[in-house]
Amino acid sequence: MDSATIDLQAEVNRLCHEIQTLEVQRESENGESITISDYILKRLEQLDVTSIFGLPGDFNMRMDFIEDHPTIKWIGNCNELNASYAADGYARVKERSIGVVVTTFGVGELSAINGIAGAFSEMVPVLHIVGVPSTTQLKSKPMLHHTLGNGRFDAYTKAAEQVTIAQAAIMTPRQAGPEIDRILTECITHARPVYLTLPMDLVAAKIPAKRLKVALPRTPPANNPDVENYVLDEIVKLVDDAKQDVVILVDACAIRHDVRQEVSDLLTKTQFPVYASPMGKTAVSEEHERYGGIYVGSITQPSIKEKVEGAKLILSIGALKSDFNTGMFTYHIPTARTVELHSDQTLIRHGHFPGIGMKLLLPKLTERLSKYKQGALKIPVLRFKLDVPKEGDYKISHAYFWPRLGKFFRKQDVIVAETGTSNFGVLDVPMPDKSIFVSQILFGSIGWATASTLGAALAARDRGLGRTILFTGDGSMQLTVQEISTMIHYKLKPIIFVLNNKGYNIERHLHGLDRKYNDIVDWKWTSLLTTLGDTDGKLSKSYTVRSKAELDKLLDDDEFASAQKIQLVEVLMDKYDTPRALQAAADLTAKMAAKSVG
Amino acid sequence: MDSATIDLQAEVNRLCHEIQTLEVQRESENGESITISDYILKRLEQLDVTSIFGLPGDFNMRMDFIEDHPTIKWIGNCNELNASYAADGYARVKERSIGVVVTTFGVGELSAINGIAGAFSEMVPVLHIVGVPSTTQLKSKPMLHHTLGNGRFDAYTKAAEQVTIAQAAIMTPRQAGPEIDRILTECITHARPVYLTLPMDLVAAKIPAKRLKVALPRTPPANNPDVENYVLDEIVKLVDDAKQDVVILVDACAIRHDVRQEVSDLLTKTQFPVYASPMGKTAVSEEHERYGGIYVGSITQPSIKEKVEGAKLILSIGALKSDFNTGMFTYHIPTARTVELHSDQTLIRHGHFPGIGMKLLLPKLTERLSKYKQGALKIPVLRFKLDVPKEGDYKISHAYFWPRLGKFFRKQDVIVAETGTSNFGVLDVPMPDKSIFVSQILFGSIGWATASTLGAALAARDRGLGRTILFTGDGSMQLTVQEISTMIHYKLKPIIFVLNNKGYNIERHLHGLDRKYNDIVDWKWTSLLTTLGDTDGKLSKSYTVRSKAELDKLLDDDEFASAQKIQLVEVLMDKYDTPRALQAAADLTAKMAAKSVG
Repeated sequence: MDSATIDLQAEVNRLCHEIQTLEVQRESENGESITISDYILKRLEQLDVTSIFGLPGDFNMRMDFIEDHPTIKWIGNCNELNASYAADGYARVKERSIGVVVTTFGVGELSAINGIAGAFSEMVPVLHIVGVPSTTQLKSKPMLHHTLGNGRFDAYTKAAEQVTIAQAAIMTPRQAGPEIDRILTECITHARPVYLTLPMDLVAAKIPAKRLKVALPRTPPANNPDVENYVLDEIVKLVDDAKQDVVILVDACAIRHDVRQEVSDLLTKTQFPVYASPMGKTAVSEEHERYGGIYVGSITQPSIKEKVEGAKLILSIGALKSDFNTGMFTYHIPTARTVELHSDQTLIRHGHFPGIGMKLLLPKLTERLSKYKQGALKIPVLRFKLDVPKEGDYKISHAYFWPRLGKFFRKQDVIVAETGTSNFGVLDVPMPDKSIFVSQILFGSIGWATASTLGAALAARDRGLGRTILFTGDGSMQLTVQEISTMIHYKLKPIIFVLNNKGYNIERHLHGLDRKYNDIVDWKWTSLLTTLGDTDGKLSKSYTVRSKAELDKLLDDDEFASAQKIQLVEVLMDKYDTPRALQAAADLTAKMAAKSVG
Repeated sequence: MDSATIDLQAEVNRLCHEIQTLEVQRESENGESITISDYILKRLEQLDVTSIFGLPGDFNMRMDFIEDHPTIKWIGNCNELNASYAADGYARVKERSIGVVVTTFGVGELSAINGIAGAFSEMVPVLHIVGVPSTTQLKSKPMLHHTLGNGRFDAYTKAAEQVTIAQAAIMTPRQAGPEIDRILTECITHARPVYLTLPMDLVAAKIPAKRLKVALPRTPPANNPDVENYVLDEIVKLVDDAKQDVVILVDACAIRHDVRQEVSDLLTKTQFPVYASPMGKTAVSEEHERYGGIYVGSITQPSIKEKVEGAKLILSIGALKSDFNTGMFTYHIPTARTVELHSDQTLIRHGHFPGIGMKLLLPKLTERLSKYKQGALKIPVLRFKLDVPKEGDYKISHAYFWPRLGKFFRKQDVIVAETGTSNFGVLDVPMPDKSIFVSQILFGSIGWATASTLGAALAARDRGLGRTILFTGDGSMQLTVQEISTMIHYKLKPIIFVLNNKGYNIERHLHGLDRKYNDIVDWKWTSLLTTLGDTDGKLSKSYTVRSKAELDKLLDDDEFASAQKIQLVEVLMDKYDTPRALQAAADLTAKMAAKSVG
């Protein structure tokens, strides 16, 4: 019954939007027309998109429309996978906007599919526009280049269906407006990628512009008031029973489903202690006085673990319980002590309340829970901090590197960490207020971070944020390295830390410590920036740091820290050294694997 | 009925193989066992595989088995797309073997899917092995990293189904042998990629080794003798009617379906003039005295065009009539004057003869047509040659470059040309006897050539062939550039020509001549090899040639020509200059597009 209600509400929303559109159409019966390309661009403009990523191809949307657009910029990438990663990074940092990637039929779109799948997995809103042959060719199916040679013109769309939440194949101008609006609405409502094919002959076809006067609906469906009230009562009762011994645990979907402001209000008005999962890192300011750090099940720092697992009630917001995000499924929090708020449902202990979404529930909950503020303040929260250890050795260890970098971070920095070593390493490092942490912990595709940094840096520039700082490994960097060239071209100035430990560190610790297949070719890292675009060496600077002293000196250098050029820092580390959290996760994984092999 | 016959014959073949296997099993009831990994490797060894491409990942096949194998080598790539391209290139040059690529669940396999699709389109036998979670996890579907986060563990396989001819998901040891054999048989019989998922916990599971004593069947199903005889009679009648004015046109599938020897015999015994399509280039020796050059419909050099289109009968072998392979569908050869031999059917004028495959038909046809030899010899064939033009200008034009390179090629060279400018440019250039031309004209995924060269060079080394020479553009090279690093690592010594014309030349000529989206970032090309692995500069050499004189000097240099190191040559060309055939194809494409937009 509740599921039926959700469907009905979605339908009501859709009908409301259609009615508004019809009203606008009636008002100006002989209204303006617009090309389909410009229609799309206008919608993207409304969604605050300023950069579109991709590569040209003879079937794809004539980029002329994008190149000629006054506020949206065409960002030409080096390859399509990188373009899709960049669109993902852009959407993550831009917020309340979407990432857009344009590729060509078959060869382009398939190269991008892993980036789109990552956006699906991690709930990042990305529009993938694919330029396809003309409508005539799509019907007659000649043996065109970029096809499979057997007339299956729908094969690529079928693959895309696996990794996108909605698809639209524009085949007539009439369809275009409603179809584009439908998938964009899905994209922003569900924070998932969508897929649009646009035939060559329709790129410049004219359609009515009237629909554009109605903005796409953003607000989630209303919660059923009776159920919502019941849910609120139940939660209040549990908080009451817990005698205010409540902790809030913020996770990925608080970011993805845009409730950071609502969570911030909840914290201010209730003062409950708050912790974050790895994927929820920086959803709440890590300088907030009621913030206690990162909870990752068994991998959690012991002092934090005790606080979270000892609380009488856990109010979990936007949980995403993937293996790496939960310390390999080692949460020690019984369901009977948990309330989970999600974008489309609420879970109270063992009870499910579908259709009760957190975006609209949270303000009411804040209202109801504010009376516990004084009691909540009595529960102490240990300051989340990490001291730089004293080590006799000159070597840059992980134990030293990450806390030391913590001192380097500034307010509003955008910090991108690659899956694996960097991601685990940076977990324990507190980040300053208003900084943004970007990572791909669930999908975990190596190479993502470098290309994603391109999009993140563009979005950061748009939003007037601080520096963009990338942490990646020598192995991961090799997958997508060419995208540095695009950063140079568009005058972006990220600081890129390449942890050179001679191979795939995380793989080494999971299996095959000394196996050759975990080795990689050593590159001349400090030549990369000049080779890949800064040919006269004026736009970039590269460094190698071999010791703690060299690292300290560089990080303390004001010119380096001011990030006026694109900079790459090769950090030489021991081949076998690894961050604490990664070692712990690897041990747990090995245990799981052993059990599963049996 | 004929189609039913084919099915029945396939079934008969399969049953024969099963019976043999059962007999072997009966003979040694308590026979040896082998791990699934070693079973696969043993089958690959039987198929003459010596290199396996891929990247490690925590779910994938423990590479230990590969690393420890005495004759098969693990080739660690920089990313998965490149690995799949390399496997494709390897299979093309190795011949009568297959390419193999190993990736990990989701993130790895999806990155490779475009390379697999290319192998499907172009009919290249490639085995894609994907390491997946344990069988327990595949059933219980926890929220593992690399998943879509929604429990759809079959999503990636569904995508793979679109671009592979057969799939096997090993879930029990019992299945493993028959399933591996089934898809490998499909792979070699149809020359198309296949997809195998291997759960972590089955990598080292033991299975009986007995099946391995029976080699996988390679011969195509027998032709129905009555139909075959009828077909032979009909063809002989047509040749007779044509009064020996017959030309043979060799195309892609003559290479893919392994009838080069049969075609060579046909030529020797009949002496009919022979021409090749772009995708059939080097299927027949271009130094053969009866070889007249490349036929591409309207784009054909006029003297060749006249010879082919003027013949009374065209005997087409392995035709693959894609747009770029047929000069945008501009064959001027009426069906009434054509006989087409294919791997699985024969077409005589308007009649179809399904199930009559060329591999077994050709020797019989040669026998029957040998009596026309004396008559055929009367038909003159113009020598296929291309003079280096005299040009006053110092600039390296396409009109100069390609014929000049023709003088540089040697017997047994492997020549890889990127889709686009290079592909069209090299078309008119005669290649020496026993050289192998490798290109991706149907699928046309830019970036393919560079990574494919890695595989091609490994296979060439295996086969004791000559130099591997790559032609690519500055735009295309950027997509997959990191794979050069792998070439350096494995001491391969290709000569890499990078045509630097400041952007996507083919796209420029198709649309947007001066558009920024067709520009790319200029790299310091001559620093690439040292940056990407030859850090002390001992293994490689790089050059820039700016003028005809510089190009000539380099090509005439014996040390350069002997290819003792990996070498990269940046060839500076005019931004707007383009090869004759590309300009012609672009003009035709523009005409087609205009018609299709209407």
